[in-house]
Amino acid sequence: MGTPMSEAATQVLVPAAALVGIGFALLQWLIVSRVKVADAFDADNGYKDRLIEEEQEEEDGVDNLEAVIKCAEIQNAISVGATSFLFTEYKYLSLFMGAFAATIFLFLSSVKGFSTEPQPCTYSPGSICKPAVANAAFSTLAFLLGALTSILSGFLGMKIATYANARTTLEARKSLGMAFVIAFRSGAVMGFLLAANGLLVLYVSINLFGLYYGDDWEGLYESITGYGLGGSSMALFGRVGGGIYTKAADVGADLVGKVEKNIPEDDPRNPAVIADNVGDNVGDIAGMGSDLFGSYAESSCAALFVASISSFGVSHNFSAMSYPLIVSAMGIVVCLVTTLFATDFIEIKSVREIEPSLKRQLLISTVLMTVGIAMVSFLALPSEFTLFDFGTHKVVKNWHLFFCVAIGLWAGLVIGYTTEYYTSNAYSPVQDVADSCRTGAATNVIFGLALGYKSVIVPIFAIAFAIYTSFSLATMYGIAMAALGMLSTIATSLAIDAYGPISDNSGGIAEMAGMSYSIRERTDALDAAGNTTAAIGKGFAIGSAALVSLALFGAFVSRAGLGAVDVLTPKVFIGLIVGAMLPYWFSAMTMKSVGRAALKMVEEVRRQFDTIPGLMEGRAKPDYANCVKISTDASLREMVPPGALVMLTPLIAGTLFGVETLAGVLAGSLVSGVQVAISASNTGGAWDNAKKYIEAGASDHAKSLGPKGSDPHKAAVIGDTIGDPLKDTSGPSLNILIKLMAVESLVFAPFFAAHGGLLFKLF
Amino acid sequence: MGTPMSEAATQVLVPAAALVGIGFALLQWLIVSRVKVADAFDADNGYKDRLIEEEQEEEDGVDNLEAVIKCAEIQNAISVGATSFLFTEYKYLSLFMGAFAATIFLFLSSVKGFSTEPQPCTYSPGSICKPAVANAAFSTLAFLLGALTSILSGFLGMKIATYANARTTLEARKSLGMAFVIAFRSGAVMGFLLAANGLLVLYVSINLFGLYYGDDWEGLYESITGYGLGGSSMALFGRVGGGIYTKAADVGADLVGKVEKNIPEDDPRNPAVIADNVGDNVGDIAGMGSDLFGSYAESSCAALFVASISSFGVSHNFSAMSYPLIVSAMGIVVCLVTTLFATDFIEIKSVREIEPSLKRQLLISTVLMTVGIAMVSFLALPSEFTLFDFGTHKVVKNWHLFFCVAIGLWAGLVIGYTTEYYTSNAYSPVQDVADSCRTGAATNVIFGLALGYKSVIVPIFAIAFAIYTSFSLATMYGIAMAALGMLSTIATSLAIDAYGPISDNSGGIAEMAGMSYSIRERTDALDAAGNTTAAIGKGFAIGSAALVSLALFGAFVSRAGLGAVDVLTPKVFIGLIVGAMLPYWFSAMTMKSVGRAALKMVEEVRRQFDTIPGLMEGRAKPDYANCVKISTDASLREMVPPGALVMLTPLIAGTLFGVETLAGVLAGSLVSGVQVAISASNTGGAWDNAKKYIEAGASDHAKSLGPKGSDPHKAAVIGDTIGDPLKDTSGPSLNILIKLMAVESLVFAPFFAAHGGLLFKLF
Repeated sequence: MGTPMSEAATQVLVPAAALVGIGFALLQWLIVSRVKVADAFDADNGYKDRLIEEEQEEEDGVDNLEAVIKCAEIQNAISVGATSFLFTEYKYLSLFMGAFAATIFLFLSSVKGFSTEPQPCTYSPGSICKPAVANAAFSTLAFLLGALTSILSGFLGMKIATYANARTTLEARKSLGMAFVIAFRSGAVMGFLLAANGLLVLYVSINLFGLYYGDDWEGLYESITGYGLGGSSMALFGRVGGGIYTKAADVGADLVGKVEKNIPEDDPRNPAVIADNVGDNVGDIAGMGSDLFGSYAESSCAALFVASISSFGVSHNFSAMSYPLIVSAMGIVVCLVTTLFATDFIEIKSVREIEPSLKRQLLISTVLMTVGIAMVSFLALPSEFTLFDFGTHKVVKNWHLFFCVAIGLWAGLVIGYTTEYYTSNAYSPVQDVADSCRTGAATNVIFGLALGYKSVIVPIFAIAFAIYTSFSLATMYGIAMAALGMLSTIATSLAIDAYGPISDNSGGIAEMAGMSYSIRERTDALDAAGNTTAAIGKGFAIGSAALVSLALFGAFVSRAGLGAVDVLTPKVFIGLIVGAMLPYWFSAMTMKSVGRAALKMVEEVRRQFDTIPGLMEGRAKPDYANCVKISTDASLREMVPPGALVMLTPLIAGTLFGVETLAGVLAGSLVSGVQVAISASNTGGAWDNAKKYIEAGASDHAKSLGPKGSDPHKAAVIGDTIGDPLKDTSGPSLNILIKLMAVESLVFAPFFAAHGGLLFKLF
Repeated sequence: MGTPMSEAATQVLVPAAALVGIGFALLQWLIVSRVKVADAFDADNGYKDRLIEEEQEEEDGVDNLEAVIKCAEIQNAISVGATSFLFTEYKYLSLFMGAFAATIFLFLSSVKGFSTEPQPCTYSPGSICKPAVANAAFSTLAFLLGALTSILSGFLGMKIATYANARTTLEARKSLGMAFVIAFRSGAVMGFLLAANGLLVLYVSINLFGLYYGDDWEGLYESITGYGLGGSSMALFGRVGGGIYTKAADVGADLVGKVEKNIPEDDPRNPAVIADNVGDNVGDIAGMGSDLFGSYAESSCAALFVASISSFGVSHNFSAMSYPLIVSAMGIVVCLVTTLFATDFIEIKSVREIEPSLKRQLLISTVLMTVGIAMVSFLALPSEFTLFDFGTHKVVKNWHLFFCVAIGLWAGLVIGYTTEYYTSNAYSPVQDVADSCRTGAATNVIFGLALGYKSVIVPIFAIAFAIYTSFSLATMYGIAMAALGMLSTIATSLAIDAYGPISDNSGGIAEMAGMSYSIRERTDALDAAGNTTAAIGKGFAIGSAALVSLALFGAFVSRAGLGAVDVLTPKVFIGLIVGAMLPYWFSAMTMKSVGRAALKMVEEVRRQFDTIPGLMEGRAKPDYANCVKISTDASLREMVPPGALVMLTPLIAGTLFGVETLAGVLAGSLVSGVQVAISASNTGGAWDNAKKYIEAGASDHAKSLGPKGSDPHKAAVIGDTIGDPLKDTSGPSLNILIKLMAVESLVFAPFFAAHGGLLFKLF
C-alpha cells in the first residue's frame, strides 16, 4: 500500500515548511523592529535604536520625545524583570529536569532489570527490538529535548512580547489600524516560531533517533513520547509559576490601587505596576506558549505512537507514518496565508472592526485548513490501511482520517466561538453579568459563576461529538489526529492569543508614560478585544488538551497491556473518583497561592504608600523592584506543591495501585478537569469584560451602570479580581494537569506494567 | 444455610423497631408541646394553648406577655406560609407524579410488548416469573408509595419545625440548656418519624407485594426499586423548589436590608423576613427530609435488589434477605439511646458545650451502631453465602458484611468531622477566610472557593476507601450495604441537622418579637452551632448519595445486561464526559434561578421601603404576603428546567444512545457531581460562619475584624450571600441529581435493554 507522496518528498517538505514558518516569523519581526523606540536611559540593555524624528508631527506633539523615552524606559524595566524571572525560574527547573530525567532513566531501564540485551518486540511478535535500557536512554533524551524546546518557546515568546509592547503604544499615536497590525504581527512572530520550532525539533529528533533504531519503529516512537512529557512538564511549571506571578501582582495592585487609593489601573504611582506588566509576559505569554507547545508535542507523539503499531509501522511506510507531521506542516502554510488577511489584505479603521478581524482569522484558517487536510490525507496516506487497537484490527480509509482531523479542527472553531459568545461584552451573557452588578458584588459573583458553569455545555458536546466520530472512524489514532487537527492552526491561535497580553502591556505603557487620553483609548480598545481572544486561546488549549489526553490515555492503556478500563472494577472506580477530585485539590492550591501572594503584595504596596513621602502625589518614585521580588519569590515557592501533585500522582498511583487505578485516575481527572478549566476561564473572562463593558460605557445600558467609581462598577471590579486567579492561574493550568498526567503515565507505562500495583500485591 | 434469626423473628422485630421509633418521636413531640405558646390573635389556626403564667418571673419581665403573643403571631405566619407553599408545590407535583407514573407503566410494560403472559426469569434460568406488565404495574405502585412517603416526610418535618421554633425562642428566656433541649428534641421528632416511617412503609410494601409475587422474588424486588425512584424524584423537586424559595428570600432580604438599609437580619421591618423564615422550613427542613428519606429508600432498594439475585434470593431466606431492613431497625434503636445522651444524660450549661454536644451525638451513635451491626450481621446472615455479580460467583462470609456496613458508617463519621473542620469557625480554615476579609470581598471569595475545593480531598478518599473495601468484600451488595451503614444512624443525623433551621428560626422570631439582647444572644449561639451541623448533614447526604448511586449504578448495569463499562469504548466515554458536565449545567440553572428570583425580591423590598410611609421607622407594617408570593411563584416556575434536566437525561440517553452511554453518563455525573456538591456546600457554610465569627467577636482576632458594619464584616456579608445558593440550592440538590439518575436508570433498565440506543441503531 504505497502513498502518492514519496518518502523523499516527505523528508523535504516537512522541514521546508518549518523553515518557511521560521522565515515568516523573522520577516514579521523585521517589520515590527522598524518601529523605533528611544534609548536615552541606559546604554547596556541591548536596545540600540534611535527614535525616528518623523513621528514628531503626531498628535502627542511636543511632549512626544519625553513620552517615547519614558516608553523605552518602561519597556526596558518590563523586559529586564521578565527575563530575570524566567532565568531564575529556569534555574530551578533545570534541577527538576535533571532529577526527573534520572527518574525516567532509572524507572524505564529497570523494566527488564537493566538488561542491555535486545528484546523481543511487544507488538511485532517474532521481531527483535532494541534493549529496554536504550529505550530508557532515548526517552530521557527526548524528555530533555521537549523540555528545552518548551523553555525556548516560552522565552522567545516573552522576548517578542516585551519587544513589541512599547512599539504598539508608539504606533497607537499614528492610528488604531497601525497599532493593531504591530500587535498582531508580534503575536504572529510568536505563533510561527513556536509552531515551526516544535515541528522542526520533532522532525530532527525522529531522524536522529532513527539512526540508532533503524527498523525498530516501536522503540523509536515509544521513546519519542518523552518529547511530549518534557514539553508539558515545563509548561506546567511555566503556567503555574507564571500564573501565580502575574495574578499576585495584578490582584495586589488592584486591591490597593483601584479599591483603596482610587487610582487608575497601570498608574505609575502604584508600586506593583511593573510586576503586573512583567506578569502578563511571563504568565500569559511564556506560560501560554509552553502550554500550547506541550499540547502540540503531545498530540503529535500520541499520534505517532499509535501509528507506529499500525500497518504503517509494520510496513515501514515513512510518508504515512509522518502524516501527523505533514498535517502540522500544512498548518504552517495555511496560517501564513491567513495572517496576510489581517496584516495586508484588510485594514482596520475603527474600533468595531478589531474583534471581527481577529475572529475572522479563526474562520479563514479553519476553512483553508480543511482544504489542506483533504490534500494531505489523499497525498500522504495509503487509500486503505489497518490500525491495531486493543487487539482488534480496524481497516481505515484515507478519507476517514480526513474526517477525523477536520472534525477536530471544526470542533476547535465551535469551542472558540462559544468562548467568545460567553466572554465578549458584545453579547447578552456578559451584559447580564454586568447588569447584576446593580445589586452589588454578591449577585455579580453568583451570575458570573452561573455563566461559567453554563459555558461548559456546548464545548463538552463538541468534544464528545469529535471523540465519538473520530474514534468510530479510526480508533485512538483518530482521536490523536482530531487533537492535532484542532492544533493544526496553532500559529494563528497563538498569534491572536499573544496579541492580547501585548495590547494589554501597550495600554499599561501608555498609561505609565502619561500619554494622551486618545492614545489610551486606542490601546484600551485593542486590549478589550485581546481579553476575548485570550479566552478563545484558553478554550482551544482546553479543548485540545481534552482530546490529546484521551489519545494519550488510549496509548497508555494499550502500552500498559490493559484490555479494558471497566468502571465497575473497584480498582478503576476509586481511581476515577479520586482523579475527578484532583482538579479541585490543584485549584485549591493554586488559588490559595495567589491569594496568599496577593496579600503579601498588598502589604508591600500599602507600606510603600505609607512610608514613601510624595508617592501618592507623583513626586516620588515607588520601589518597583521590591514588588517584582515578592511576585518572583512567591511564584517560585508556591509552584512546588501543585507541581508535585501533578508529577507525583501518576508515579504513586501507578507504582502503588497499578495500571487499572491509574487508568481510572486519568479518566476521572480528564472528564472533571475539563469542566473546571472551562468554567474557571470563562467566568474570569466574563467578569473582566463585564467590568470593561461598564468602563467603556458604549451603550445606554452600559452608561446606566457606570461610570468608573459608581457602585455597580465597584462590584464589577470585585468580580474581576476574583476572576483573575480563576482565569489566569487555576483554569489554564488544569489543562496541563490532565494531559501531563496522561503523557507521564504513557512514558512510565512499561515500568508500571512490570512493577506496578505494589500495594495490591502485598495485601 | 439457615440464619440464627428465624423468619418469624424478623417479621416481628422490623415493624416493632419502626413502631418504637414512631412512639419515641411522639413522646418527644409531647415534651416539646408542654412549652405553651400564646394564642391571642386568631382562634381558627389550631394553636389553642394558653400562655403559662409561671414564666412571668423570667428576665423579660413585664413585656413578657406581649412578646409571647408576638412570638405566637410570627410562628403562625411562618407556619401558614410554609403550609401554603408546600400545598401549592404538592399540587403541581401530583400532576408530575401522575404523568411520570404513566410513563413508567407504559415504558416497562412495553418491554415484552404489553404481554400479560408469565415469562422465564432472568436470573434463575428454568423458573417462570410474573409477566412484565405486572412488574410495570407494581413498579408504578411502588413509585407512588415512595413519592407519597417522601412528601409525608417533608411535610411532617416542616410541621414539627414550625411548631418548635417559637417554643425554642420562649425556652431561651429560661436558659440556654433548656432552649437547646427543645430544639434538639424537635429535630429528633423529625429524625425518628422519618426513619421509622420509611422503614415501615417499605416493610409493609414488601409484604403486600409478596402476596401477589409469592416465590418470584426477582420481580418483587425489581418492582420495589420504584419506591426509591418515587422518594428521590419528590426529593429533587423539594430540594430545588425549596432551595430556590429560601435563597431568593434570604438573598433578597439581605441585599436590601443588611447592605442598603443597614438594618439587622430578621428585622421585622424587612418585608422579606417572613418569606426568609418560611424558606428555612420548606428548604432546609422539608427538602432535607425528603432528600435523606430518598437516600435511605434507594440504598435499601439497591441492597434488596442485589440480594434478591444472590443465594438468599434463590434459597428464599427471608431473614438474610431482610438484612438491610434489620440494619435500619437496629439503627432506630441505637439512635434512640444516643438521643438520651443529648436530652437527658448530659445538660448544656454554656455556649461552648453546644457544638461538642452535637458532635458527640455522631460519635456515640457510630460507636453504638458498630456493636449493633455486629449483632445483626451474626444473627440475620448465614455464616456463608454466595453473591452473583456480573456473571461471577463470590462467596461471602457474614463478618465481611459486618465490615461493609461498618466501613460505610465510619466513613460517614469521617465525612461529618471533616465537614465540621472546614465549616466551623472554631478551626483555622474558616478563621483564615474571615481574616482574608481584611482586604475585601474579592480575597474572601478567593479564599472561600479554595477552602471548598480543598474540603473535597478527605471525603473523597474516605468514599474511595469505603468503595474499594466493601466492593472487594461483597461486590455491589457490599457497596449498597456501606451506603445503608452510613445512613443507619439517619435518625440522629436528621435530628442534629433539623436542629439547625429550628434554631435559626427561633433566632429570627426572637428578633422579630423584639426580645431582649440576652435572649437573642442565646438563640444566636444555638444557630451558629446549627450552621455547622447543617453542613455536616449535607456532608452525610452527599457521601451517602455517592455510595448509593454507585450501588444503584451497579444494579443498573447488572439489570441492563452489560458485562462491563469500558471507558475506552467511545459510547461510554462520551457518556462519561457529558455526565461529568451535567452537575455544571444543573448548577448554572439553579444558581441563575436564585439570582433572578432574588433580584425580583430586591425590587419588591425596595418598592415597599419606598412606597410604604413609616416602614423604615417601624410605624407601618410591611406587606409580607407579597414577598411570600414572589418566592413561591419563582420557585415553582424555576424548579421545572433543572427538574426536567435530571428526569429526562436518563430517558433520552437510554432511549437514543443506549445503556452503554447511559452507564457512562451515570459514572461521569457521579464522580463529578460529588466534588461540586461537597465544595459548594462547604464553601457556603464556611462563608456563613466566617461572617458569624466576625459578628460574635469571641476572640481577639475576631474582634480585630469586627464589629458589625466594619469593612471586613461587609466583605464577609458579601461572601455569605454568594454562599447562600451554593450551600442551600445547587450543592444539596446535586446529590439528588446523581442518585436520582441512577435509580431512574435502574427502574427503566429493562426498557433500555430491550428498546434503547435508537440513534446508533438507525445510523
